[in-house]
Amino acid sequence: MSYVKKLKCLLCGSEYNPDEVTYTCPKCGNDGILEVIYDYEEIKKHFSKESLQSNKDYSMWRYLPLLPVNDPSKIGPLKVGWTPLYEAKRIREDLDVPYLWIKDDGRNPTASLKDRASAIAIVKAQELGKKVVTCASTGNAASSLAGASASVGLKNYIFVPRTAPKAKIAQLLVFGATVLTVKGSYDEAFDLSIKATEKFGWYNRNTAFNPYMVEGKKTVALEIIEQMNFEVPDYVFVSVGDGCIISGVAKGYRDMLSLGFIDKMPKLVAVQAEGCKPIVDAVNGDGTVKFVKPDTIADSIAVGIPRNRVMAVRDVKESGGFGIAVSDEEILSAIKYLGSTQGIFAEPAGATGFAGMLKALKEGKISKNDKIVVIVTGNGLKDVESAQKAGGTPIEIEPRIEDVERVLKEK
Amino acid sequence: MSYVKKLKCLLCGSEYNPDEVTYTCPKCGNDGILEVIYDYEEIKKHFSKESLQSNKDYSMWRYLPLLPVNDPSKIGPLKVGWTPLYEAKRIREDLDVPYLWIKDDGRNPTASLKDRASAIAIVKAQELGKKVVTCASTGNAASSLAGASASVGLKNYIFVPRTAPKAKIAQLLVFGATVLTVKGSYDEAFDLSIKATEKFGWYNRNTAFNPYMVEGKKTVALEIIEQMNFEVPDYVFVSVGDGCIISGVAKGYRDMLSLGFIDKMPKLVAVQAEGCKPIVDAVNGDGTVKFVKPDTIADSIAVGIPRNRVMAVRDVKESGGFGIAVSDEEILSAIKYLGSTQGIFAEPAGATGFAGMLKALKEGKISKNDKIVVIVTGNGLKDVESAQKAGGTPIEIEPRIEDVERVLKEK
Repeated sequence: MSYVKKLKCLLCGSEYNPDEVTYTCPKCGNDGILEVIYDYEEIKKHFSKESLQSNKDYSMWRYLPLLPVNDPSKIGPLKVGWTPLYEAKRIREDLDVPYLWIKDDGRNPTASLKDRASAIAIVKAQELGKKVVTCASTGNAASSLAGASASVGLKNYIFVPRTAPKAKIAQLLVFGATVLTVKGSYDEAFDLSIKATEKFGWYNRNTAFNPYMVEGKKTVALEIIEQMNFEVPDYVFVSVGDGCIISGVAKGYRDMLSLGFIDKMPKLVAVQAEGCKPIVDAVNGDGTVKFVKPDTIADSIAVGIPRNRVMAVRDVKESGGFGIAVSDEEILSAIKYLGSTQGIFAEPAGATGFAGMLKALKEGKISKNDKIVVIVTGNGLKDVESAQKAGGTPIEIEPRIEDVERVLKEK
Repeated sequence: MSYVKKLKCLLCGSEYNPDEVTYTCPKCGNDGILEVIYDYEEIKKHFSKESLQSNKDYSMWRYLPLLPVNDPSKIGPLKVGWTPLYEAKRIREDLDVPYLWIKDDGRNPTASLKDRASAIAIVKAQELGKKVVTCASTGNAASSLAGASASVGLKNYIFVPRTAPKAKIAQLLVFGATVLTVKGSYDEAFDLSIKATEKFGWYNRNTAFNPYMVEGKKTVALEIIEQMNFEVPDYVFVSVGDGCIISGVAKGYRDMLSLGFIDKMPKLVAVQAEGCKPIVDAVNGDGTVKFVKPDTIADSIAVGIPRNRVMAVRDVKESGGFGIAVSDEEILSAIKYLGSTQGIFAEPAGATGFAGMLKALKEGKISKNDKIVVIVTGNGLKDVESAQKAGGTPIEIEPRIEDVERVLKEK
């Protein structure tokens, strides 16, 4: 059994036993997102810095005592997590930011951070005896769920807006998912998937709706903490769509604080695209989230109705952080910069956090001597069209050395 | 300094000191590929099963004593290697092959096994004081070289056939490479890159031409050996283009045999596409490689003039293995099967080894109780068009629950 003590509604504060509720607060409806509360005193008995140091499981499961898993035999085989945290030497030198780290979470099995949440989803689905899982997604949550499901033999029905990038849809289909491309927005796909869950009794992995997804995502922070040898940075930059990843980061740091492994929280910076920045505006304003119609190249964070808005805004505000919005041009330029300076290939939403860090630095919102972590949330191969826009064009030549000479002269 | 003792020509047997020659045998020209010979007695003093066990560097560099690196400070920051070796439980059950392992090398930084060789290339380039590196590639070697170069600040000029998949070219450009798309085949691009190397003094990473690429690639086998706890499988299935990866696998096992860490070699199986199978024919015939015009969807192994043919044919024959060719349909079907059964997403050449294993099993060339390792060499996101062919099509619906019900009924 896990060390989960209770589930607590973010809106009304009601508390439930984990086996009482599957998704949101029965009193508050689908906005009543439940937070997972652990018994840290019990965890401390089985989990320490020393036990971590001798643990040879270099995956997200090295943090098993901090995860909502009752039956570890249901954990899937795909190797999720323990992605590299780079010291980003060339960028440090180029920008004169000596304390910059980049976490490349595009290195997960289906090439995005979402694999961390889906890994939990398939455990919970199996624990409940479900045979079918579902979710709505801009693409990455879906492909991660489909991959994880395939690895353990769960069927899945996936709802994506039909505008999702081709690579993500192709990935889903190869993983054997039944893919329903919805003529509508991500927000409409989200609502439809919840209706289908209620109607057909499937297990639903939707961000925010499912209380355990934040728990999977928090492992990115747990890893960063361990990879930085329990040093806490001043800022962590995270791209934000529904707001579930940034709350995961907050939860990871809070867990480690509760255990006494670290002594403070970092400031969290929510980065969104200018064409879709409801969380940024709320964080920098009075906390109220106003829904918008998304207009950005960063499809993974093109979320007009952020489902985890209450928790995300709370987490950023409590941390003393802020929000910052970047243009699509700044995102594309961040893709190229990350790639050509450090060899890290990010999709648009994956590079958005980095673009926000660059802008915050330029605008003096953070200083060059701050300790900064940036999370890259997804791999650039997920969205080749955007990569083409960011990368530029190749030079076509005949197979003749004279053509090569000409190119060299022109450069 | 490394433990490299000498470089030995595969054709004439001439031996050279490592600082005497950079690429091929001066006597035999570009066909005179050099093999890297180590001083195993010296290596044994610094490298043991025990030293491995306590080594926390979970990357290809954990095998540093077995690598041709003189100056470890030149190693790039990208985390290459220590990719997962899956026990492939669902496939084991489905096919009734209880001893099957799958190595997913698409989990490398630029999503292919080639990262292992490029990681070595940028070390050697820097050791020689070179500022520019180059290669010809069907795509993966190039993107791996471009990513590795970006991470340490080397310029690069990349020659690819203009038919290379868009994702691979986009990746190259994001990594800041100057990409020359050659109006011609990979084979023509290869020759052109060597001419350019001679003319402009660049460092050349071409497969086979550069003696150290096999050394990087062998780390995939070193990892498999360690991940299997020094048990040697009966067969290792490898997709073959130039023949450099399969020789890398042979070299890895030979190294471990020379050190006494294992007691036999596995049989190596070279898998190629039916539309391009010069190595398969040579291996199954008298060893002579006849050049062909490639015609296959598996672009990464569409190599009509396999540059490492002599070594590859020797290695497969010496191992007691064989060659097997699969159709493009079998490759596409292997992509879908790997994805939907195990959550592993492979590009066509990446799934070719697996397709060959399926066929060998069906044809009785191997038996169900053999211990089998299959290497997946590249990620499916590299070639979305092929993934679309393999995966099938999504179902478009309006955002209405009635539409979902209709789909369920139809299925």
